[in-house]
Amino acid sequence: MRINSERLLGDMRKLATFGKDGSGVHRLAFSKADMLAREWLSSRMSEGGLDPILDGVGNVHGKTRATTRSVLIGSHTDTVPHGGWLDGAMGVIYGLEVARCWREQGDLNLGGVDVISFQDEEGAYLSCLGSRSFFGEVKSEEIQTASNSEGEPLSEMIRLAGLSGRALARHDPEREIAYLEGHIEQGPQLESQGVRIGVVTGIVGIRRFTITIVGQADHAGTTPMSMRKDAVAVLMELGTRLFQDFRNLGSPETVWNLGNIVISPGAANVVPAKAELSVEFRDTTPEVLTRLEAAVAEAIGHLAASSPCVVESRPVLNLEPAAMDPALGRALHQAAEDHGLSHMAMPSGAGHDAMVCSRHLPSAMLFVPSIGGRSHDVAEHTADEDIVNGAQVLLTAVQALLGHEPNFLGHGK
Amino acid sequence: MRINSERLLGDMRKLATFGKDGSGVHRLAFSKADMLAREWLSSRMSEGGLDPILDGVGNVHGKTRATTRSVLIGSHTDTVPHGGWLDGAMGVIYGLEVARCWREQGDLNLGGVDVISFQDEEGAYLSCLGSRSFFGEVKSEEIQTASNSEGEPLSEMIRLAGLSGRALARHDPEREIAYLEGHIEQGPQLESQGVRIGVVTGIVGIRRFTITIVGQADHAGTTPMSMRKDAVAVLMELGTRLFQDFRNLGSPETVWNLGNIVISPGAANVVPAKAELSVEFRDTTPEVLTRLEAAVAEAIGHLAASSPCVVESRPVLNLEPAAMDPALGRALHQAAEDHGLSHMAMPSGAGHDAMVCSRHLPSAMLFVPSIGGRSHDVAEHTADEDIVNGAQVLLTAVQALLGHEPNFLGHGK
Repeated sequence: MRINSERLLGDMRKLATFGKDGSGVHRLAFSKADMLAREWLSSRMSEGGLDPILDGVGNVHGKTRATTRSVLIGSHTDTVPHGGWLDGAMGVIYGLEVARCWREQGDLNLGGVDVISFQDEEGAYLSCLGSRSFFGEVKSEEIQTASNSEGEPLSEMIRLAGLSGRALARHDPEREIAYLEGHIEQGPQLESQGVRIGVVTGIVGIRRFTITIVGQADHAGTTPMSMRKDAVAVLMELGTRLFQDFRNLGSPETVWNLGNIVISPGAANVVPAKAELSVEFRDTTPEVLTRLEAAVAEAIGHLAASSPCVVESRPVLNLEPAAMDPALGRALHQAAEDHGLSHMAMPSGAGHDAMVCSRHLPSAMLFVPSIGGRSHDVAEHTADEDIVNGAQVLLTAVQALLGHEPNFLGHGK
Repeated sequence: MRINSERLLGDMRKLATFGKDGSGVHRLAFSKADMLAREWLSSRMSEGGLDPILDGVGNVHGKTRATTRSVLIGSHTDTVPHGGWLDGAMGVIYGLEVARCWREQGDLNLGGVDVISFQDEEGAYLSCLGSRSFFGEVKSEEIQTASNSEGEPLSEMIRLAGLSGRALARHDPEREIAYLEGHIEQGPQLESQGVRIGVVTGIVGIRRFTITIVGQADHAGTTPMSMRKDAVAVLMELGTRLFQDFRNLGSPETVWNLGNIVISPGAANVVPAKAELSVEFRDTTPEVLTRLEAAVAEAIGHLAASSPCVVESRPVLNLEPAAMDPALGRALHQAAEDHGLSHMAMPSGAGHDAMVCSRHLPSAMLFVPSIGGRSHDVAEHTADEDIVNGAQVLLTAVQALLGHEPNFLGHGK
C-alpha cells in the first residue's frame, strides 16, 4: 500500500492556512483559527469515509465507517503561540491519510483506522486537555478553574466555541486496539545522524525544582569574605555539583537543564542576598529520575548544613515517564526497514498526547527529522520527503497490525 | 583637650533633620534639603569662628580665622537615597567640633582647623564632584554633560541652587598640611572584633567587569547534552574557578563579589542562550589587583577555547587604590591609645573623598563602629559613645600634628 503524497502534503498545507503566521502558524486552542481548522478537518474526514464528531472539549474524532476494530492515529491541531506548521498537525493528517489509504487499499473486515485531533495539547488552558478527556481523566473542577495566561476561563471559551452540551468523544477499548502518533522530532538527533525515522522508546518523565538560596545583602567592599552570606557563592558550588552528579548518575539519554537564575538585589557592589535556580532533568527510566532526585536532595542537604545560607528546594513539576509499547515499536522499525529507511530507537524529550494514551492502550510514536532541530517556532520545518516517509511507515505498520491476529499486541507494557 | 560631646551630638542631630526620612536621611546633592543643610552648616561655621564660603559646586569650606596653617577635616553632607544620618555628615561635624575645640583650647599661632563639606560624594550627578573640584580635577565638560538618574542636568541643578558664577573653593598647599576624615565603618569588622577605632591604611582599588557568555537556546528536552551550547554550564565553571582563584591569589584583605547574574531566555525548559555575570574585586595593593585581573583574563581565555560558548569580558570600573599617609595613621593610632581606646589598622572597602584628597596632600581616615555593619540605609547607626570617641581621637591627633614641627609629615606616601 502506498501513501498518496500529493493528497497528504496538500491537506497539510491547507491546514497550515488556518492561523497562518509567516512561515508558521499561530493557532491557539479554542481560537477562531483553531475552531475553523477543526471544522475543516471534520469535513475532510467525512469526505474520506470517516464519521467525525467535534466533541464537548473540541476534540475532532473520526471513525472509519463499517468497521468495529481500529488503530487510532492522531495528535493535535492546536499550536503554541507563533509556532510551526508541523507540530501536532502533521500527526493528525498522517491519521487522515493512513485512514483513507486503508479504506481504499485495505480490507475493512480486518478493521480500519480512526483519526483524532486532540484539543489543547499545548496547554493554552489545560495541557493535554483533549487526550485526558478522551480517557476520562479530566475532572469537571479542572475545566471550571482553568484559564489562559490572560485570565480567560476555559469554560467560557468552550461556550463561545459553541461546544457546550456536546457529547465527549471517549476511548472504546473494544474497538481501538492501539494508538499511533507521528511527529516531528523537535530536536537535532535524526538530522545530525542522517537517520530518517525515529521510533520512540518512551516519553521522558520530568522532575523540575526551584531551588532557593537565601543569604544576606551586605556591602561588597566593606564586608570581609569570612563574614558574608553570599547566595551566589553557594549557587556556584551547587550548580557545579549538580552538573557533575547528573553526568555521573544519569543514563546516556538523560538531559538536564539549569534554565534560569534570578539574583537579588543583583548589584555589582552588593553581596547577593538571594539566588533562585530552576533545575530540571528528564529520562525515560523511573529509576534514573529517582537517583537524580536523591542527588539533588543530597546536594541541598549538604549545602544547607555546610554553607551560611538557607538552601531549599521546591518541586514544581513531576511527570512520570511513559513507556511506548514494544510490539508496536517493533512494527514501526520493521515498516521503516521494509521501505529501506534508516531508523533508530530514541526517547522523546518532549511531552505528547501519546503520553496520556499510553496509560490506557498500547501506544507508539514515530519521529521524522526536524530541520535544524527547530520547533515551537515559525522556523520549524521538515523536508517533504521525510513527511511522506513518516506517513508511509505508519501505513505499513497499520497493515501489519490489522493484518495480524488480534493478539499481535502483547499488551505487555 | 576635650571634645564638647553635647555640642557635637546636638549639631549632628540637627543636621539629620534636613531631609529626615524616618530614622535616616534622604538628602541628595543639590536637593532643597541638601542646600538648606549647607546653609545651616555655613552659619554654624561662622558661629564657631570660621569664615565659610558656599562655592560654585556646592562645597561648604570654612577656614579658621586668624591662622595661616591648617589641618583640613571634613567629608560630605549629601546622602544616598533613603540613606543613614551618619555617612558623611558625621565627618563634617567632626571637623566643625574639632575646629571649635582647637580655637577654644589650642594655640592659633600653631595653626587651626579648616572644615569642608564636599558636594555629591555619593554621585547623584558626579561621584566626588566636590573633592575633585577642590583639587582642580573636574573638567567643565564633565559638569556640562553630567545628569542624575532622572536625566536632570547637573548644570541646571547648579543654576537652580543659586550657585552659578560663585567662586570655587580650592586647596591651598601653603595652608593645608593634611586632610583628615572621620567616618562610620559601613561594615561589621570593628563591631564584631570589639574594637573602637579603625585607622584606615588605604582605600581599596576596584576592578569591575561584565562577563558575557553566549551559547544557543535549544529545547531542554529534545537536545542531547553533547549538542548543547549551554551558557549556564559555562557560567558555573567560570564562577567556581573565579571564587577559587580569588581565594588563592588575593591577600587576606581582598574582597570579591559576583553580584549579579542575568540569564536569557531564562525558562526552565530552554537551554540558556546567554549569561551575563558581574564580577568585581577590591584591594589596597595594586599588585594584588593586577594579579586577580590576570586570573580573570586567563579563566576567560580558557573557557573561550574549551567551551562551545563565546566568552567575553568588558571592564566597567577601574579605580586605583589610594594609600593613606603612614605618619598621619601613626598619629591616629597614638591618639586612640592615649584615650585607652582599642584600635586596629584596616582598609576602607568603600570609596571616600579622602581617596581624592590623598592624591594631593597627606590624608588619613578613621572609622568608628557601625551597628550591625549597616550603611546606605535608614537603619545605619552608631552608639553615641563611639561617635564621641572618634571626634576625641581626631582632636588629639590634630593637637599632635599642629604641635609638632612643620615636617612632622614625611610626605612619604
